[in-house]
Parts: sequence; structure tokens; C-alpha cells
Amino acid sequence: MLMINETHNVKLSSWVTSANTDSDFPIQNLPFAIFKRKGQEEAFRGGVAIGDQVVDLAALAKLDLFSGKAQTALEAANQTTLNALMDLGVETNSALRLALSEALRTDSPLQSAIASTLVAQADIELGMPCQIGDYTDFYTSIYHATAIGKLFRPDNPLLPNYKWIPIGYHGRSSTIGVSGQKFHRPVGQTKAPDASEPSFGPCKRLDYELEMGLFVGKSTEMGDLINIEDAEQHLFGVCIFNDWSARDIQAWEYQPLGPFLAKSFASTISPWIVTMEALAPYRTKFTRPEADPQPLPHLSSEQNNQHGGLDIDLSCFIQTQAMRDNNQQMAQLSKSNFKYSYWTPAQLITHHGSNGCAMRSGDLLGSGTQSGPTYEEAGSLLELSKGGKTPVDLPNGEKRTFLEDGDSIIMRASCSKDGATRIGFGEVVATVLPAKV
Amino acid sequence: MLMINETHNVKLSSWVTSANTDSDFPIQNLPFAIFKRKGQEEAFRGGVAIGDQVVDLAALAKLDLFSGKAQTALEAANQTTLNALMDLGVETNSALRLALSEALRTDSPLQSAIASTLVAQADIELGMPCQIGDYTDFYTSIYHATAIGKLFRPDNPLLPNYKWIPIGYHGRSSTIGVSGQKFHRPVGQTKAPDASEPSFGPCKRLDYELEMGLFVGKSTEMGDLINIEDAEQHLFGVCIFNDWSARDIQAWEYQPLGPFLAKSFASTISPWIVTMEALAPYRTKFTRPEADPQPLPHLSSEQNNQHGGLDIDLSCFIQTQAMRDNNQQMAQLSKSNFKYSYWTPAQLITHHGSNGCAMRSGDLLGSGTQSGPTYEEAGSLLELSKGGKTPVDLPNGEKRTFLEDGDSIIMRASCSKDGATRIGFGEVVATVLPAKV
Repeated sequence: MLMINETHNVKLSSWVTSANTDSDFPIQNLPFAIFKRKGQEEAFRGGVAIGDQVVDLAALAKLDLFSGKAQTALEAANQTTLNALMDLGVETNSALRLALSEALRTDSPLQSAIASTLVAQADIELGMPCQIGDYTDFYTSIYHATAIGKLFRPDNPLLPNYKWIPIGYHGRSSTIGVSGQKFHRPVGQTKAPDASEPSFGPCKRLDYELEMGLFVGKSTEMGDLINIEDAEQHLFGVCIFNDWSARDIQAWEYQPLGPFLAKSFASTISPWIVTMEALAPYRTKFTRPEADPQPLPHLSSEQNNQHGGLDIDLSCFIQTQAMRDNNQQMAQLSKSNFKYSYWTPAQLITHHGSNGCAMRSGDLLGSGTQSGPTYEEAGSLLELSKGGKTPVDLPNGEKRTFLEDGDSIIMRASCSKDGATRIGFGEVVATVLPAKV
Repeated sequence: MLMINETHNVKLSSWVTSANTDSDFPIQNLPFAIFKRKGQEEAFRGGVAIGDQVVDLAALAKLDLFSGKAQTALEAANQTTLNALMDLGVETNSALRLALSEALRTDSPLQSAIASTLVAQADIELGMPCQIGDYTDFYTSIYHATAIGKLFRPDNPLLPNYKWIPIGYHGRSSTIGVSGQKFHRPVGQTKAPDASEPSFGPCKRLDYELEMGLFVGKSTEMGDLINIEDAEQHLFGVCIFNDWSARDIQAWEYQPLGPFLAKSFASTISPWIVTMEALAPYRTKFTRPEADPQPLPHLSSEQNNQHGGLDIDLSCFIQTQAMRDNNQQMAQLSKSNFKYSYWTPAQLITHHGSNGCAMRSGDLLGSGTQSGPTYEEAGSLLELSKGGKTPVDLPNGEKRTFLEDGDSIIMRASCSKDGATRIGFGEVVATVLPAKV
């Protein structure tokens, strides 16, 4: 597990002055993305955010300012995806982080050289950060699992396996897009409870899911088992993740093999990946209520108990077409925190690899909807509308039970606490277009 | 849908004489694979099987013998995967098939030129035919679904959605390997029915599943819907597929989100992809019992009714360590046929794309276990052993309830009928190694 080091020092400031006040991207963050300059005929490549700028890692690699592992990582970032960089593992990427931190600090002798590699974020287009070979979605919020379980199985909301294994399923990678994604309302087969037969048409219960996305770093080979003590060696970083869901399609299709077309039409990630190292100050204890079963030995370690969780504030907003038309602010739907997760990132990746499943750099693990213990912390409209029964009132007088065409969902995430610098994830936004039929 | 044409003519013979008698790969077949010569430092590239030889498509492309679409396809095959070739679509690939058929026929003026591109199959190593972006597994045998359903839900084996939508789930692509794969027995969390708590250890109920694999050809973009009349424009071809399954892990983990680690440790495909065009003589009617619901309009067409199915004989064998040690023949476990599928390939891909899900060339659709109506046609040990209660007797005196370490499973497939030339798929073999813990 990556520990707090000099790159997290709250006293550090950057000669990129926009990084020093009220930015998601202070020098203590340094998240990665894939970008190109808008409107330019040029290749996508790796970049690191600092304030309102991005360090062009391809340009920086050419300057040959760094050496050793930092330079190795830099060269790996000079590609159209971050997969090669991710696969280098924690130690090499940590060397690049330190080199970038030093180079971007106030009074760095490298200031003028690095300044030549900066591009304003206002001038860039962000791409998919990596090729996602496989995408897995977990179900780590016990509050979400219980709330959803109550809708489908009122007498038995939480199944017996829930507290023993991180429940998850394979998802579809072909339709994962980066923030800015617009997608057509899915069409599908549904069956109303009072109908004798199913019918085919546009989804009527379209929903979002407020999640975190974890990116696999160093790959494992098929047959390799991951020890929980080493699990975070295989984690590169974290993004915000919206796992769009068609609740009516899901209700009809999901038994016995799980969600399929209810999820595969679109999923959206935030473009900046905050590294596990940047999150070191925001680790939390992982504790289970005493009455709950404690994890089996292969999913348990002292380190995981002490620091396994992540304290990341999440918030979710809606911007409807009417809000856009009338120049109204987007409306907050809920807020939550990743620390509510019943399973830690280390447990998720250990469990995933426990059967010998190969984990490849760039693979995405969704956390599952991160609902918290209270109503205000519900991570989906299905929960906020109490199973579609109680519409949510928006401040402009509109109501939402499920999403309507033209709705955008905006999710944000950030970490802050006394004694550490606030870091942010930026945001993920995506918009529902009308169905194609 | 591809119709029977001159490339299927039973009178055709090849100057590659091994193709003319008792071969899986007569001139009427011409399946694709990715290969390299054994022990050579050279790149994998596309090849087409003819008798006991393979046409090296990279070498052939350089000869510039073909023109137009056939040459375009040939150049696309000169890569380490077949994805680019697959993405060209039916018409272009059909042109290559016709050109190869003509060039390989007895008395072809191209014989000596083509002969220079042949490599003996005995001298080659076969690779993964394509990059599988996403893998989906369906559940199309109503006999399998009913048999499995009885084990989990004796009173309610077939769920209400089964006859209305092709049930499927997303699978894991990182552990799909080609024939010859050896994998360690998976380890995982299981809970015995009489245990108060789950435990972690090697799988005790390891099984195979006899399936077909369908490869997506021409890609669709996110948001594109696939019309059933056009569905086979997006299908490249078919392989044999063994979807290894850990039944004890599955029983504990699968609710509510479906199979996960019970499947993701390994899956094995046969290396040769038989094209949809090669299968044209083996199309079958698609009919439902009158008492069953007929497919909704978007999953139905006259063409699908008349020719939607595929008549492919399947067989499954076991070779245990004892059989190898004693030089005994492998033992047949079962035989079945893909025509028993409750859903056609066109229906599977139409359904999959019906929500706007992007289908990418090289994506794999598993058919699900192809059990037939009788006991002898069961496609898994779970069925043959009646839920693990009745061991299967092998001819050498051994018994199997589930698989033991050292067991190899061999699956074969072929098509034959009066008035058409028999074509085969080769085989898929894979072997269970001991668990790593």
C-alpha cells in the first residue's frame, strides 16, 4: 500500500499558479488522462493535470529531463492509451510522480523546460484513458444492495453470500465512453407486471448509478493468484463511473444469469485517473459491524483493516433540457462517500484474481452504486424515487421518477480532510438522447 | 444470409489431395485461423486450412495473384489477428473465399504459385484467431436450461423470460485461450449445503460445457440497432467452445448478479473458424412448438424461420491421466447438435444489439451448453451425473462425477448430410492442472 510521502506535503505549491487555489488538480494530485489538442490533427497521448493546465507527457518524454524509472514511465505514456504506463506497476509510476512533483514545484529549476510542455485544459479534448480489456462491476454498497434487494425480494433483501464475497459480474466494455458521452435511450424487451406478454420498445425506467471505477495497473497472468497484501500493486488509480441502467429491461431479463442488456448500452467514466498514490492521505479503516461475519483469511489483512478504505466524497447532479433552456443551475440529486463500501479495493482485486483469472492493465472494476446509509446518499433514481413510486422534486418545479430525454447526469468526486490538501477527480457528465425507434 | 453457391459444389476437388478424402477441411470448407510455423521466430498471421495444409495468407498476399475485394481481404489477413479481416464484412470475405476456392481446385492454373504458400499443419502452431474485445455467453439450449433449472429450482426450472428473450450474460475475455490450453483448477469460495460458513479452497465440482462460439464480423457503432434480416451481415463464423465451469463456486456466488468467478478462470476455443458461408448447406428450419410463444417481431423473419438454424454435430470426449498412462483411447461422453438451440445466431446478435450495444469484430458469442433432448446429448458433467449424484462410468473402469486433475476434454464438431460435402471444425482440447494452492 502506498504511504504518505513528500509528494503529499500540504506545504507544496506549484509555479502553475492555478493549481494553488481551489483546484481539483493541485500538485498533490497529478492525475493522468489521454488527451489531444482540440481541432488539431494529432495523436492522443498521456497527460497529467496541474491546475488548469496539462503536462504533455509525450513532449516531456522528448526533453529527456528525467532519468531511470521516471523516464521509463514517461516513455510509456507517449502512446494513445495509458495501458503500457499502467502495466509498469507502482514503483515505476511512483518515480514518475515524484519527478513530476519536483519539476512542478514553486522554484523548480525545470520550470521553463516543463512550461514548454503545458497545454491549457480549455484547449484539449480528453480521450478514453486506456483500452479496457474487461470490465467488471461489483456491488459493494450494502445500503444499495439492501435497497435494491427490498424491491425485488421484500422478505429477503440481502442474499446469504453478500457479507462473505464481493458480489460482482462481468460487464460490457464496447460501450464504455469518456465524459461527454451522449447515448440514445436504450430499446428493449420489457414486461409490465400486469401484462400477459412482454413487449419491445424504448426503456421507460432509465437510471444512473453513482460509482467509482478502479483501473488495474500491473497485469497478472492466467493462473496467478493475488495475495491481499500485494493486491494494490495491481491497482493504478480511480475514476468516477456512471453505470447507466435500464431498470425495466433489467427486471425482465436478469434471472437467472444477471444484468445484460440493461447495462450494456452505455457506461461513462471521468477522464482523469487519480492514482492510488495520490489517494494515500485519504485511506480509512475498514471495519465491519461486530455482528457481521469477518472476511475469510484470503480477504483479510491488518493493512486492509487499518487503511483499506478510501474516503472519497461523491456528489451527483442533474441538468434537464428545461434547465439548459432557462439557464438554470443543475440540481443536486445526492451525495455519498466511497468509504461506505462493504469491500475494499484490495479485497475486490484479490477476490477477482482468486480463481486464477488474468487481470490486465487497463481493466476496469466498477465499485457498484455507492449509496450511503441515508436517503440523501442514495446513488440512483431507483432508490431516490423509492422504486419508482415517489418522484423526486427538482428546484425548478420539474419532477423525475426516472430519466427523461435530454437529461444530463453530472457526477463529481473529491477528497478533503484536515492536514491534507483537497484533491478532486473533475467530473463525469453524459446525456440521454431520444431512443432511435 | 449466405446462400449455397459454386464454392459448395460437391463435385469440387482440390489439387491438395489430402483435402479430398476424409478431411475436416475439404475445399468446400476453407476455415480461417491465425498461425505461425513451430519453433520459428516469425509473426503470427492468417491462414486457411485445406486438407492437412494451411494456405499462408501473408505469403499469398505478397504474390498479388488476386484482385479487387479478394485482394483487400487477403491484405487484411496479413496481421497477427483476424479482426481486420472479420470487420470487412460478408461480401468482401465471400470474394476471398471464391478466389481461394478457384485457386485450390484441381487443375487450377494457380496451383504452382499457391503451392509455394502452403505450410503443413503438422508444422504449425495455432494462435488466438482474434482479439476478443467482449465475450458474451448465451443459454440457448432449452434442454440444458431446464436440466440446470431443475437442480436449482425443482418446482420452477424454466423462468418466465426464457422463451421470450435469448438469456445471456457478459463473460471474461482475458482467460479465453485456444485449443491446447492447460489451466490450474480454480480456487474459490464455496459453501456446502450443510456448512454454517463458506470456506476457501480448490473447486470440487469442475465441469466443462459443450458450446459453439460465434464470432462477430462487421462491427456496429454504439447506438446502431441490428435488424434481424441483416443480422448475419455481422457474423463471421463459428468455432467449438468449451466454457469451463466451477459448479460449487457458481452455486454460492451467482445470486443475484449471475456467474462470475465460476467461469472466468478459463474458456477454450477451437482454432479454426468455419465461416457462415461454408455453413450455408447446413442451415435448418427454425421452428418452435406451437404451444410455445413465437418470437416478438424484432426477433422474427421468414428467412430466420426457413434457414435460421445450423445443423452441426457435436461430440465430447474425455482423456484421463490413466488413459494417457495406459495408452487407452479417449472416451466419448456425449454427442449433440447445434440445431437444438432455442434461438438462432441471427436472433442472438439482433437481441444483443437491440439496446444499441456496439458489437466489435472479433467479439465472441457463446451459444451456451448445447444439450439435446436425451440423456446421451447432455453437454456437461453436471447433467450427465444428474447434479453430481450419479457418477459417469468410463470404459476403462474409471468414474467421473466432476473433472479430476489431469483430465483433458476434447470436443469435435462437423456437418454432414446427403448432397453436401462433410466439413469439420477440427477439435478443441484443454487440460486441467492441479490447483495452485
